[in-house]
Amino acid sequence: MEKINLTQAFATFSEYWSPRVAGDINASQIKLAKFKGMFDWHHHEHEDELFLVVSGTLRMHFRDRVIDVAVGEFLIVPHGVEHCPEALGDECHVVLLEPNTTLNTGNVINDRTVQAPSPL
Amino acid sequence: MEKINLTQAFATFSEYWSPRVAGDINASQIKLAKFKGMFDWHHHEHEDELFLVVSGTLRMHFRDRVIDVAVGEFLIVPHGVEHCPEALGDECHVVLLEPNTTLNTGNVINDRTVQAPSPL
Repeated sequence: MEKINLTQAFATFSEYWSPRVAGDINASQIKLAKFKGMFDWHHHEHEDELFLVVSGTLRMHFRDRVIDVAVGEFLIVPHGVEHCPEALGDECHVVLLEPNTTLNTGNVINDRTVQAPSPL
Repeated sequence: MEKINLTQAFATFSEYWSPRVAGDINASQIKLAKFKGMFDWHHHEHEDELFLVVSGTLRMHFRDRVIDVAVGEFLIVPHGVEHCPEALGDECHVVLLEPNTTLNTGNVINDRTVQAPSPL
């Protein structure tokens, strides 16, 4: 059992859209991810997904609106809701909290799909 | 679906050791709590518990050591592990992630037990 420092943990990887598993809380996981540019539209059939921004700004696109999430803010995207994350500006760093079954690209399988996210 | 700003959310309540439910992620919840002084020794039979510090410093006491968790750091306490949270200095503000069945005092029922935490 060790504490994790978010700044130090984010410094250990540089890939975008490739979440790192930072811990397990029963059937949920906390993951760290770096976003740059636009991701892909997708939804998660069963999993809700929390996005907590720790650096930069996350613009979450929905089919009917966008929500900009700044540092110190979080957004929960319910399962079934189509969304597309975008990093505004250079990049953004996000803490994800979601069931450990969650695939980053949800219902879409493409070259950015990470089947088994690495640990930190 | 609305984003939540942590600073604004923490400003909406003042009670210590009385977590507010800030959102549901499937069977997990994100809760906000203000700690001051020492809490009570307890464990959770089944639930792991994540503590992310956003203000102040959390000292987590275990039977064999203490771990100090500063702003921007988190600690996961596995189920079954006895612990006792303490706010160092004046107070500390903590984001909790845990199963929605988690009782703040775990296996102990006393006057600080919150059977049904209020929403924000």
